[in-house]
Amino acid sequence: MLEQLKEEVFQANLALPKHGLIKYTWGNVSAYDPETQYFVIKPSGVSYEEMTAADMVVVDLDNKVIEGKMNPSSDTPTHAVLYKAFPEIGGIVHTHSTWAAAWAQSGLDVPAMGTTHADTFYGSVPCARFLSQYEIDEGYEHETGSVIVETFRERELKPLEVPGVLLHGHGPFTWGKDAHSAVMNAVVLEEVCKMNLLTRQLNSFAEELPQRVLDKHYLRKHGANAYYGQK
Amino acid sequence: MLEQLKEEVFQANLALPKHGLIKYTWGNVSAYDPETQYFVIKPSGVSYEEMTAADMVVVDLDNKVIEGKMNPSSDTPTHAVLYKAFPEIGGIVHTHSTWAAAWAQSGLDVPAMGTTHADTFYGSVPCARFLSQYEIDEGYEHETGSVIVETFRERELKPLEVPGVLLHGHGPFTWGKDAHSAVMNAVVLEEVCKMNLLTRQLNSFAEELPQRVLDKHYLRKHGANAYYGQK
Amino acid sequence: MLEQLKEEVFQANLALPKHGLIKYTWGNVSAYDPETQYFVIKPSGVSYEEMTAADMVVVDLDNKVIEGKMNPSSDTPTHAVLYKAFPEIGGIVHTHSTWAAAWAQSGLDVPAMGTTHADTFYGSVPCARFLSQYEIDEGYEHETGSVIVETFRERELKPLEVPGVLLHGHGPFTWGKDAHSAVMNAVVLEEVCKMNLLTRQLNSFAEELPQRVLDKHYLRKHGANAYYGQK
Amino acid sequence: MLEQLKEEVFQANLALPKHGLIKYTWGNVSAYDPETQYFVIKPSGVSYEEMTAADMVVVDLDNKVIEGKMNPSSDTPTHAVLYKAFPEIGGIVHTHSTWAAAWAQSGLDVPAMGTTHADTFYGSVPCARFLSQYEIDEGYEHETGSVIVETFRERELKPLEVPGVLLHGHGPFTWGKDAHSAVMNAVVLEEVCKMNLLTRQLNSFAEELPQRVLDKHYLRKHGANAYYGQK
Repeated sequence: MLEQLKEEVFQANLALPKHGLIKYTWGNVSAYDPETQYFVIKPSGVSYEEMTAADMVVVDLDNKVIEGKMNPSSDTPTHAVLYKAFPEIGGIVHTHSTWAAAWAQSGLDVPAMGTTHADTFYGSVPCARFLSQYEIDEGYEHETGSVIVETFRERELKPLEVPGVLLHGHGPFTWGKDAHSAVMNAVVLEEVCKMNLLTRQLNSFAEELPQRVLDKHYLRKHGANAYYGQK
Repeated sequence: MLEQLKEEVFQANLALPKHGLIKYTWGNVSAYDPETQYFVIKPSGVSYEEMTAADMVVVDLDNKVIEGKMNPSSDTPTHAVLYKAFPEIGGIVHTHSTWAAAWAQSGLDVPAMGTTHADTFYGSVPCARFLSQYEIDEGYEHETGSVIVETFRERELKPLEVPGVLLHGHGPFTWGKDAHSAVMNAVVLEEVCKMNLLTRQLNSFAEELPQRVLDKHYLRKHGANAYYGQK
Repeated sequence: MLEQLKEEVFQANLALPKHGLIKYTWGNVSAYDPETQYFVIKPSGVSYEEMTAADMVVVDLDNKVIEGKMNPSSDTPTHAVLYKAFPEIGGIVHTHSTWAAAWAQSGLDVPAMGTTHADTFYGSVPCARFLSQYEIDEGYEHETGSVIVETFRERELKPLEVPGVLLHGHGPFTWGKDAHSAVMNAVVLEEVCKMNLLTRQLNSFAEELPQRVLDKHYLRKHGANAYYGQK
Repeated sequence: MLEQLKEEVFQANLALPKHGLIKYTWGNVSAYDPETQYFVIKPSGVSYEEMTAADMVVVDLDNKVIEGKMNPSSDTPTHAVLYKAFPEIGGIVHTHSTWAAAWAQSGLDVPAMGTTHADTFYGSVPCARFLSQYEIDEGYEHETGSVIVETFRERELKPLEVPGVLLHGHGPFTWGKDAHSAVMNAVVLEEVCKMNLLTRQLNSFAEELPQRVLDKHYLRKHGANAYYGQK
């Protein structure tokens, strides 16, 4: 079942090491099928050299394995929470990519300092707080999803306008309308984290991008009046 | 029409990811034909894997598509302004290359700190100001070109002596006598931005290259008495 | 003799340049055979292009060559001391990987600042002290092993919970249950050293990972209740 | 003539981009033949893709072209001065490699902070001063060589014990007993420049390697009692 989605998720997983975002098995991609309300996700701890599309695991939104011989990614409950809370998204990526992980370890939001950021993220990418002991005991991966949702609710952010988050002390999650765009957003976030760190080293007083330029760049690529790319 | 120039522009576009200057479609190269007063430019938002030389778009200096089935790069009006204002140039490159983008985000000129810089750029590479709201509303990409031209006029710079610029909060534009040399200048600028940032980290008091060494290196490669390379 | 272990050690040595951990011959891998109490190690100063599995040298715990036509790695006595003191380990890696060497040169322990660290190392990776003149004269490589063992004894660390160490002014040693996992731990340590340095640049007050998150991540991958990966 | 040396110099030149030390044509390698007192050097400004062993130029110590259809490297007079002053060396490399160039731009010597350094360079790698206007007018490339020689004389350094130098505002020259070892020393210097810059970022008070460890590492690889590698 969901053979095409499995192939998409498999290819999106392979794109992570190709883009230099992960080493070994430190990442996972999933994609959601609105019709069945199932999602397809990478199996846990399987090397990219050995993995095939058929190894992808089909899971429902309560984390029950619907199809597949292997354990799904240990981060599966985080994905499930996000698909439930953000119905507009269709794909999710988690990595430990170096520069985004460094920002996550620093506990800082990633401010919009340039148009590379503004072309994809409409404002700062937030850094979500550490989980409490209680939350860890309740279910670490499920509560990780809840803290991401809490962060977006509290800051009144729209998931497709700011398609990513950092987890304090951990690394980034990104998402998008499908697995492919979630991967692309992971690449952008990693690059923006690198550019912004270097910018701060050059000029610790460097200002954020003026709102007018943020608006212009985000809106020429997204929304009703976008004019970037082909029709 | 302009089949050879299309091939040159196509190859120069492919050189950008090869040199690590861009990810996805974040860049564009054009080249100018003085006889027809048309220029050839990359189509907007098309992936490098799928692109062919035949997809290059022929545009006139008023941004009218003369030949081509696809939309030209959204940055086309910036290129047009530069070809009009700087008749000595024949190729233009725009990228979001990491280290040059970090300098652009910092809002600082790139000073000539070494001979790698001096071999190509005869003095600092300027960082052009943000556009005003009025300019953005008038036509963001066209006015971006105007601000570059304004920067060169105000500082009395010659476009082939300083073949590049940073846009505050955005990234670099470089140019040259043709598309190939514009790419080469983009590579040099990225490398110089990296070297200079590292230099500042080592020694925040590091001095600029003395004028006598800047003169020597620039002039042994450029101008009437150049003696670098083969005849 | 020990043909399979030779092949494993050979492949693990080849993995070092593949993962970008070494240049030229600046590294070595060994693996231990508990039955014979011999270990297999890379020959000294032989290039990776020319090396074959048959060139691996079999040595006993007193550094006597048991089989092999070439000199074993000059670091052989360090490996021997570690196998004697840490009977639970089966493979050892030494590199001069860039970011770990920078931490080693700084003389600082590598604190646990993120989950990338916590997934492999259960706490800080210690930096062992310089050898004294007396120790250098007694036998530099043997005493290097002794200082590593001293460091783990003094800090009451378990070798498989913290499977690596930095040598002040030198570089990392990592280990594991076999040569393959020792290489994997070398990759993790290098990556963590990079992430942590970048984190400090972003936020010099960045806090270490809370103990509760360190516990959770380490223990979901290691120990009796681990649930990461396949059965 | 000197066909084998041409092949060696050609291969050593190709090794520079392979090791990531140069872009385009920003580097050159030569090797000396003591019998004829000629040296073989890369032609000026020729791309590595098009270059063949037959394009290498044979020059005498007065910079006269003995054989070859192309102009020799514009840095030829620097090489000639070094071969005359340092008869123990047989190969020379010049690059603008990123991290070494950053140190050169900073005007600082590269201190021995680790064993990666000590395995090749027996103490700090000096940074030679800028040339005066008079020296530039007299002959920039020849005087560059003279300033290197002056630096080694004043500091009482032996060229094979410290097989390299930085030129302030420019980049590194390295050398060795032949072209291959000169390339290897260029790789080491680049790596050491990177490690040391990172070390300073981690700990601005990081100390230099104690003399006893510098002695031990240098002397276990070099000199009468060396025991690294095969016989």
